[in-house]
Amino acid sequence: MPQTIIRLTVSDVRFPTSLEQHGSDAMHTDPDYSVAYVVIETDQGMQGYGLTFTVGRGTEIVVCAVEALSALVVGKSLEEIVSDFRGFYRLLTSDGQMRWIGPEKGVIQLATAAVLNAVWDLWARSEGKPLWKLLVDMDPRKLISCIDFRYITDALTEQEALDILVKAQTGKEQRVDQMLKEGYPAYTTSCAWLGYSDQLLKQLCTDALNDGWTKFKVKVGADLEDDIRRCSLIRQMIGPHNTLMIDANQRWDVGEAITWVTRLAEYKPLWIEEPTSPDDILGHAAISKALAPLGIGVATGEQCHNRVMFKQFLQASALQFVQIDSCRLGSVNENLAVLLMAHKFKVPVCPHAGGVGLCELVQHLILFDYISVSASLDNRMCEFVDHLHEHFRSPVVIQNAHYMPPKDPGYSCEMLEESVQTHQYPQGQVWKKLQGQ
Amino acid sequence: MPQTIIRLTVSDVRFPTSLEQHGSDAMHTDPDYSVAYVVIETDQGMQGYGLTFTVGRGTEIVVCAVEALSALVVGKSLEEIVSDFRGFYRLLTSDGQMRWIGPEKGVIQLATAAVLNAVWDLWARSEGKPLWKLLVDMDPRKLISCIDFRYITDALTEQEALDILVKAQTGKEQRVDQMLKEGYPAYTTSCAWLGYSDQLLKQLCTDALNDGWTKFKVKVGADLEDDIRRCSLIRQMIGPHNTLMIDANQRWDVGEAITWVTRLAEYKPLWIEEPTSPDDILGHAAISKALAPLGIGVATGEQCHNRVMFKQFLQASALQFVQIDSCRLGSVNENLAVLLMAHKFKVPVCPHAGGVGLCELVQHLILFDYISVSASLDNRMCEFVDHLHEHFRSPVVIQNAHYMPPKDPGYSCEMLEESVQTHQYPQGQVWKKLQGQ
Repeated sequence: MPQTIIRLTVSDVRFPTSLEQHGSDAMHTDPDYSVAYVVIETDQGMQGYGLTFTVGRGTEIVVCAVEALSALVVGKSLEEIVSDFRGFYRLLTSDGQMRWIGPEKGVIQLATAAVLNAVWDLWARSEGKPLWKLLVDMDPRKLISCIDFRYITDALTEQEALDILVKAQTGKEQRVDQMLKEGYPAYTTSCAWLGYSDQLLKQLCTDALNDGWTKFKVKVGADLEDDIRRCSLIRQMIGPHNTLMIDANQRWDVGEAITWVTRLAEYKPLWIEEPTSPDDILGHAAISKALAPLGIGVATGEQCHNRVMFKQFLQASALQFVQIDSCRLGSVNENLAVLLMAHKFKVPVCPHAGGVGLCELVQHLILFDYISVSASLDNRMCEFVDHLHEHFRSPVVIQNAHYMPPKDPGYSCEMLEESVQTHQYPQGQVWKKLQGQ
Repeated sequence: MPQTIIRLTVSDVRFPTSLEQHGSDAMHTDPDYSVAYVVIETDQGMQGYGLTFTVGRGTEIVVCAVEALSALVVGKSLEEIVSDFRGFYRLLTSDGQMRWIGPEKGVIQLATAAVLNAVWDLWARSEGKPLWKLLVDMDPRKLISCIDFRYITDALTEQEALDILVKAQTGKEQRVDQMLKEGYPAYTTSCAWLGYSDQLLKQLCTDALNDGWTKFKVKVGADLEDDIRRCSLIRQMIGPHNTLMIDANQRWDVGEAITWVTRLAEYKPLWIEEPTSPDDILGHAAISKALAPLGIGVATGEQCHNRVMFKQFLQASALQFVQIDSCRLGSVNENLAVLLMAHKFKVPVCPHAGGVGLCELVQHLILFDYISVSASLDNRMCEFVDHLHEHFRSPVVIQNAHYMPPKDPGYSCEMLEESVQTHQYPQGQVWKKLQGQ
């Protein structure tokens, strides 16, 4: 029986993480991890939950954008949407008036992600499956019908995408079993935020090693001498065989990136993440070329705003690790396009996570990537940050530094009602208290 | 005596242009030309006016973003801002929390443009000069200090930018006199919007030829047979020696663009504008390369969201005409960077205009480009659309298809109070009437 979406509500939910420098980096020195949180309801009493991640001020703008998109969603049935999901995606991203303020970038794309994440959550719940399983079980032609190929056919045609998915049907069931048993490999960013003291970094690193972590990411880019000290410290802590990655969060110009990272090469980082502007495809290509002889790759994507940008990063050999984000791109639909392009260009996908809910969401996508697209774990791992999971109904399960596949139906977006209530900005109790009210 | 900005107000002002298909193109079929309109006031009773252009729905999101930026502006003195304009620019574009929802793109960048346009208007008024003259009279070092060079130093260093400006000091006074006498060459887009009938197109074309216009732009991209008919018709109307340009407003994929434009080559367009996604630098480069043998250039820029994107379009030889926009980029500050890069890469600048107020604003920038940067009119012209000028205090003056330099102090952004009142959305009289209230 078709069910119609009759209501969409959106909330501005913020966590005061800046108080303890959690999440601090060279460009975001005082983030308050936040979400624009969307709930859709159907006439049959089902809910879908979606969100997009933000870092504090400006969340109200994304909320405003979600409200603007709401009119395109409310009144539609789930069946109508998923029977032509490509068309529905384009309805949201190519509205003849609203596309001017994007198109497919910034605030309006973040809002699109929040809304469509809720639709995917609803779809997975209505099928009684976790999202990754909904995707893994879906017919390749149906998957393809969710993707808007506009502007990417010069890199990937529908037929090529279909061929990739059909080919990966082989061995799928074994990979499902493997994931259910072992989980998907993860790395941790929790040990070395820029605002943490050396003392705290050491303590967190020791704890992480004891918990079985083998791959570690350090924030760099504010001060070179500081970075040398911190990279040296963490390399000593983790030893020569564990993996180190460094992340500059867009701090440098192109030439500066090359010089700076060359100075850190002796600590053997696997990648330098976001060395410069997230828009600078040709700059990343120049950096990739310069660092290749040092054995250092370039990773980027958490602020890469759409499939057209990822297409070019791949065409230009501008990255060696694709970092998809579940809330920056236009939800599952656009991420499917990027996973398939990355496979065609033979570049591993290592998702961005952390924030609020990004780990909960993106684990579904990377499980699908392994099971139904890449069939490989070489040079692949998913970011993990140990924050704010307690606010979710179905938080991630990490075992021995691996993401264990979610079992609850949906996209793992649902937050605890109390968490949403107390953290609403500015009227929630947490914020009233901080403002001395 | 320093003056402090004590108030910022912003309004959602919309014109129901979709009723008559003014402004219709292949991707924006029903635009209601609109602005987020900003007024700043100082403690000495001066005002500055700024705006950014939108096409209807979603303007309220940009208004919300302007309100979020307001806290960074109110309380600052004009003197404090212009003594370190680069720093102030970065304060707005790199706020540690708000940059996440950009950075420097989409809604937040449009809002930045509106706010900074008002600051530049205030500055020019306080000096008693039209903005173009403020820029032309400004010391090159001071001009440079307004530009954020972050992420573009691999294409243009501060020293190179300074050298360009110093070199162009020669002959500056003659060029000022020439502009005051002859004006800056323009082309018209008013004759051939996609929604216009052949009958209307013919009539408007005849009128325009009688008024001295020699350069015409036609919207294409929805239907090839239609385009052939319309291009043939307009080429017949204007004859072989006048200039024709075509504009697809992002309708095609890369391969499709090449095929389609090749079919229109016999009508000898000077350029194809926005053949594909505004984000697709490498795609535009491929199209440029394919169309060069046909003598057709590629023009783009009205939805190019920042200097990092323009840098790459230039580096990749992906465009042959740079179309700056006064309200998409971060105001005068970022446009200065693009004008200087275009000069270095020897690519002519032909601004995007039309909409609401875009002609009023961008004429200042292109006058500055000719007088103080390029010193050339080769292959250069500024778009003109004959709509909605009557709502401005100092509307553009067109004589013999040339923009005559504005004489009133400021950036020509001020709208008539009555126009703002009656077109406010949704509470203005015009909208109440349309909604049958």
